[in-house]
This record gives sequence, C-alpha cells and structure tokens, in this order.
Amino acid sequence: MAAAAAVALRCCFPGSAIGSGFVSPYSRGGRCAAAVAAPTASLGHRTRVDFPILHQEFDGAKLVYFDNGATSQKPIGVMETLDEYYRTYNSNVHRGIHALSVKATDAYEGARRKVANFVNAADSREIVFTRNATEAINLVAYSWGLSNIKQGDEILLTVAEHHSAIVPWQFVSQKTGATLKYVGLTKEEVPDIEQLKGLLSNKTKMVVIHHVSNVLGSMLPIEEIVTWSKRVGAKVLVDACQSVPHMPVDVQKLGADFLVASSHKMCGPTGVGFMHSTFEMLSTMEPFLGGGEMIADVFNDKSTYAEPPSRFEAGTPAIGEAIGFGAAIDYLSCIGMDQIHEYEKELATYLYESLLSVPNVRIYGPAPSQTDHRAPLCSFNVDNVHATDIAEILDLQHSVAIRSGHHCAQILHRNLGIKCKCSCKSSLLQYKRGGGRFHPCT
Amino acid sequence: MAAAAAVALRCCFPGSAIGSGFVSPYSRGGRCAAAVAAPTASLGHRTRVDFPILHQEFDGAKLVYFDNGATSQKPIGVMETLDEYYRTYNSNVHRGIHALSVKATDAYEGARRKVANFVNAADSREIVFTRNATEAINLVAYSWGLSNIKQGDEILLTVAEHHSAIVPWQFVSQKTGATLKYVGLTKEEVPDIEQLKGLLSNKTKMVVIHHVSNVLGSMLPIEEIVTWSKRVGAKVLVDACQSVPHMPVDVQKLGADFLVASSHKMCGPTGVGFMHSTFEMLSTMEPFLGGGEMIADVFNDKSTYAEPPSRFEAGTPAIGEAIGFGAAIDYLSCIGMDQIHEYEKELATYLYESLLSVPNVRIYGPAPSQTDHRAPLCSFNVDNVHATDIAEILDLQHSVAIRSGHHCAQILHRNLGIKCKCSCKSSLLQYKRGGGRFHPCT
Repeated sequence: MAAAAAVALRCCFPGSAIGSGFVSPYSRGGRCAAAVAAPTASLGHRTRVDFPILHQEFDGAKLVYFDNGATSQKPIGVMETLDEYYRTYNSNVHRGIHALSVKATDAYEGARRKVANFVNAADSREIVFTRNATEAINLVAYSWGLSNIKQGDEILLTVAEHHSAIVPWQFVSQKTGATLKYVGLTKEEVPDIEQLKGLLSNKTKMVVIHHVSNVLGSMLPIEEIVTWSKRVGAKVLVDACQSVPHMPVDVQKLGADFLVASSHKMCGPTGVGFMHSTFEMLSTMEPFLGGGEMIADVFNDKSTYAEPPSRFEAGTPAIGEAIGFGAAIDYLSCIGMDQIHEYEKELATYLYESLLSVPNVRIYGPAPSQTDHRAPLCSFNVDNVHATDIAEILDLQHSVAIRSGHHCAQILHRNLGIKCKCSCKSSLLQYKRGGGRFHPCT
Repeated sequence: MAAAAAVALRCCFPGSAIGSGFVSPYSRGGRCAAAVAAPTASLGHRTRVDFPILHQEFDGAKLVYFDNGATSQKPIGVMETLDEYYRTYNSNVHRGIHALSVKATDAYEGARRKVANFVNAADSREIVFTRNATEAINLVAYSWGLSNIKQGDEILLTVAEHHSAIVPWQFVSQKTGATLKYVGLTKEEVPDIEQLKGLLSNKTKMVVIHHVSNVLGSMLPIEEIVTWSKRVGAKVLVDACQSVPHMPVDVQKLGADFLVASSHKMCGPTGVGFMHSTFEMLSTMEPFLGGGEMIADVFNDKSTYAEPPSRFEAGTPAIGEAIGFGAAIDYLSCIGMDQIHEYEKELATYLYESLLSVPNVRIYGPAPSQTDHRAPLCSFNVDNVHATDIAEILDLQHSVAIRSGHHCAQILHRNLGIKCKCSCKSSLLQYKRGGGRFHPCT
C-alpha cells in the first residue's frame, strides 16, 4: 500500500529566528552565546552563532534547518566535549582503576546527574542511559511489560503515538494476549482525553502517551492522565521526545511511571537517550539486555544482577555520547528552559499564522487558539502537490530543510485522512524515487 | 561472595612499541602515519603519533595504555570525522529528502559498506549496527534464540566466554527450558575443543564461542568448530571482539552464522557495534526492538517489517558514531590488518617472556609455544599482592594503565582457581574501596 505522506516543519530556538541579525563568537567553556549576547536580539539570533552547521551556505543560500522534529543541531560545546573526551581521557567506565578510567567514569556519571537534574529526578540512579528513546520504550515493554501484562489486560495508546511507542507494545500484545486500545482525535485534531478517561478501567495496565505530538504539535495534560491512570492501577509511559528539549519538564511533577527522551533531539550527540523511572520501580524490574556491567555475580546457570541503573546498561555504554549529552544539557540549562519555551511559543504562533496565509495549505492539528499549548511545529499539505515535492523544492531552491513522509506516525496519518498523492504504488518504486536511500512516502 | 580478581594487560599496535623512537605529524585525510613513515621504525612507534591521547603526560611520565582489551584509543582521523559530521551535515538518516539528510544517509550507509568490506561480508545488508557487541549478542538471543530454541535443546558455550556472551543465553535458557552446557579448559588453559566436539549432538541448537579470549589470549579454530556444528545442525555465534580489531577476519571463510564486534575496541567511537549474519538468515528472523525505521507498515494491532538490516535498527541510530567507526576502519585498513597482526605477534611473545621473567608472576592461559596463536595480552597475578594494588601502583607510579578485576569472566576466573586476595567481603566494601566508582574485585 502507498503510505500517507505530509510535510512537517519544526522550528526550534537555534534554527529559527525572529528579529534582527546578531553575530558573536561561538560560546566556549560551557557558556551559551545567549547568556552573554545583547538581550535585544531574539533568542534565535543569539543562539544561532553557537551552531556551526547553520553558518553553511548551499548555492549561496544559508541553511535554514526546520527538521528539528527528526533531530536537532549541536552547539559547538558539544563537539568540543566529544573531542576532548576522545583526545584526552577516553577509557572504559566502572572497570579500570587507572586515571583515565576514573576520569571517564566520573564524567559519565556526571552526565547522568546532569540529565537527572534537568528533568528534576529525585536521584541520578533513576536515569538509565539507552541508545535512543526507542530503545528506552522497548526496555520498558520487555522488562516491565512482559512481566506484568497478561491475557485480557489492556494497553491504552493514542492514535497520535510515534511508531516507537506503538510497535514495542504490539510485541507485548502479541506475546501476552493483551489488547491494544487506541484513543482517537477530537474535531480539533488533538487526542481525545475524555475518550481516554472513559477507556481507562481496571483492565488497563499501561497507558502509553506522548507529551507533545511530533505531528500535531499539541500537548497532553500528563498530570491529569497520570491521576486518572493511578486510580485504576495503570502505569503511564510518557514519550517526551518533543517536550524535554523545548520546555521545562519535571518528572516528579508529572508523576508518570516512565518517561523517555533522546539526546540527539536535545542538541546532544546521536547514540544516547534515557529512560526515567523511580528507583523503587527500577528495583522491581527484571533486566532486559544481559552482559557485563549489569551483573553482580555470574554462575553457570544463572546470574545475580547489579542495582539500577547498571542493571539496565549491559556492555560498554555510549560513553563519549553520554558525556556529550551532558554538555548539551549544560547548554540548554545555560539559556534556560523557560526562556526557550517562551521564545518557541512566539515561533509557534508566527509559524502557524504565516503558513495559514499561504493559499491551499492544510495544516494538521489544533490552531493555537484551540489549545493551551502548540509546539512550534506544523505538519501540512498543499492541495495537489506531493509532500516530497514541497520538501524538495524548499531544499533545492531555498536551502530550507524540512521533513516529508509519514513522520513515523502512519496510524495518525490514516486518522487524519491523509493519502499519498504520488503515483508510487510499491515500496520498491518509492525506494527508487528516493534515489535508493529512503521512501519519500514513508 | 568475593569475586575472583586478576590483572590483565593488552598490548595493541598504537599503545605499545618495540624499537626506536619516531615522530611524525598526525595523519590527515584518512591516511595513517604508518603508511608514510620510515619503515625501519616499529609499527608501534609509527602509529603512536596518530593517537593524541598517548602524548599526554601524568606527573611527567608519558601515558602507557595497556587497557586495550576494555577499549582502544582513537586516531585523530576518527575525532575529525565525528567533528565534521556534527559541524557540517548532522541530520537524521533514511527520512529526509533535504541535502543534509541525503549526505548523512550516504555516510551512514557508507560506514556499513566499510564494515562489510572489512570482514569480507558478501553484502553490506548483512551488517546490522548495534550499540555494542553486547547488544548484538542479545539481538541474536532474543530474535533467533527465543524463536528457535525449546525445552530439551542445548546451548553450548565455553567457560572462557565473556559475560556478554553468557548472560543473554541464560535468559534464553530460563525462558525456553533449554540447557546450557560448558566446555572446560585443557591443562594448557585453553578451551578444550575436543570436549566441545564431544558435547555436540542433535540437541545442540547454538554454539556460543569467542574467537580470541580476552583473558587467556588464546584463539579458537572457528572454521573447524563451524564444520562440526553444521553436522549436527547447530548454529554458531562468534564473539569476535578481541580478534576483528587485531587480525584479518573473513566472515565468509569462518562460516559462522553470527559474528559480533564493537567499534570502541577497534579504534572507533563508543556507542556502536555490529552483528554480521547472512542476508538469508537475517530475512528469517523476527525483529527485536520495535519502532521507527524497522517497519514497513504500521496498523493498529500489527505491523509489517522492513527488510534487513533496517528491521533490526529501530529508531534513530548512532549516526555520527557509525560514521566515525567507518573512519576507524579506514585507519586500520590503511595500515593493513596483516601488518597489525604480524606486529602484534612480536608484541605477544615479548610481553609474555618479559612478564614471565618477573619473580612470583603467574600468567594465565597458554604459553606462546603451546598454541598456534597467542594475542598480545596477558592476565596474571603476583603472589600475595592484590590485583588492584598492582594496577594502582602501575598507574600511580608509572602512568601505565592496565585492568584489574574479573574481566567480565567470573566463570573463567573460578575455573582458573583465582580467588580474591583482598579483605573486602561484600560488594559494598569493594565499592567503597573503589572510591564509589567501581568494584576493584569485579
């Protein structure tokens, strides 16, 4: 089948700017340009200077990067931190007694503390490093899900979840006989939380929800959903990939059982993400991946396991990447998540209204006036133009990088009635159209 | 219980040198210093210049890095490649149609081809990127193991396997009712392959073996073991973490069903490793982690999956790290794995004989004269001295970084009769002795 396709555009503080130009040297030593720059310039202009990639030109046009929903760009301090790690103290962690290993271990555990502080976790042991948010969700599904969910139980999701939040729970459903139930959309095109409330019952064992939708830009009231879920004894897993990088997120305030996010969407390196849960919850969970680091003692037939978070970090972790992630958090914290959030609210309205003024554009998700919060991202289609063509024209003619495709949310695209408008009928054709690299409709 | 402890030392071409001093500028543009340097100097001296970390001094003494068994150091080209990626074309892969995404996708898939060529895979689609070798083994255990192993079946391992190769198969055994059988050591302290041959039967479904032992330094005859295993219909998984970085490894020649290794032990970044299998085998396997990238179509209750290798790479991969891994492979290839292997053979004999001449030193594993191949690594103990003290003295007094502990091989240490000689009775005490960072006996 031909997959549905739309175009998505996510503004973000470094990639997007409102206001007059501003130039400063790259920030050094953990400081962000925003903190030292003229406060009259917009946050976009003040921070843009910290991102080397944004200073590139393609055919004379400066790169405008609007693919922040897929991955964010990195400030110079992240590259410098990675470089310093590999040049001066690269070593395996938790294992050696020599100076390099001690320094690497301290930096790796320091990064864990930075993540914990950033989301206001009660204890840094509540942060488990994973490769990405996807692995973090799979960890919960395999470790908590397979041990606690059984036939007849229900797993509640919304139709707006990312594939990474759906497919692992399909696995759990297939292995346990539990049922997946989906919350639909309201006419404003936001997940219907009244329906969610109504679907909650003592059969519900897990509620899997996004904080901010990567397609609709809408935000769910996590605290309320957690309160309702707790009443029926259901756990809540929050996909916070599109919120943690863009606003203050307090895991204790939200109260969810699990929350996941990815470094690469937070100005940090690829190859690392995290899962937050309470130490109490983590302590009850079975290991997921087996290997070094996660064990206490290994006997022929069985092993005993280390305490969390080591229990869930088998093998050599993404050491340099976690440390680089820490530098990204330093950078975001230096600007201040409140300031980022305020600025992005301006961008959101500007983006939505500007796009709405273009003829024949259909924007998906709620209007800013219909919702408490709309992230500065818009998914849209233009009548009778294929999403891929829009993306290609913007890229080739204006050096504007946006995303086209189903944004890892096929179920949502189907619910929105988005149909692929191209003539590609098969995956192979789609693949060829993408130059053998990707499927433009997927 | 107190865990067994020994000291291990792994020489490696950049960290160790025999011969006269040699200085040259760092290599640039993918070239290795070894290729352009005076051929009279040893490979250790010629390549040392490419590794910034080795030029550091601690209290006036130059770092001597012998912890290559745990992780290797990185040549300058790897850091430059990482830096270039994040500064100039960081983007998510396989998803966007814009210029950055196309470039990042090409580089990521180019890295896959480099890995495939490096181990002589028939097709780059036979290389699955993972976080590390540990995840790669878990992938095989969860995906192939749980679908193909049942009660009454046997999984054959040697007592010398790394925890990463043991614990995932304990999971499979516990979930399926299959039995784990261990091959012991000969009096020369190598895994007894005659015993292995005798234990193979039509009950054997999987043979899990290392190529080169991280403790004993010995090498197993994989081709023979594969031939014997095929006769009884058993699959073979090879942990090649200590061979792929140090000698030419040809997966087609070895003929094993699965082979795994880690970038960070191959002069590449942390956060990425790989699993090789045939495309035919991968095509029969169920997915492991669910999410974006690994799907074809997602419906409410079920999904269809992408072809390998995407099927096994859920979510945003370690893009920068895979590309950096490609640069490490360029570096190793530029020197030539034959040349590295030849040089390391010299190092192995020199290391073994030098250590043997020290009074009261007990080296584990075979003497070079007792085996076809001994890697340039030695695990040893000194009579009545705790392994951690040896490591600490070498570090503090001589800036020599070695590893102490059980080297993720507790079962092997028990088989070698190594007992912890310190007074630490509990994990907590061990932990405190390690300054809260690690357990010196583990």
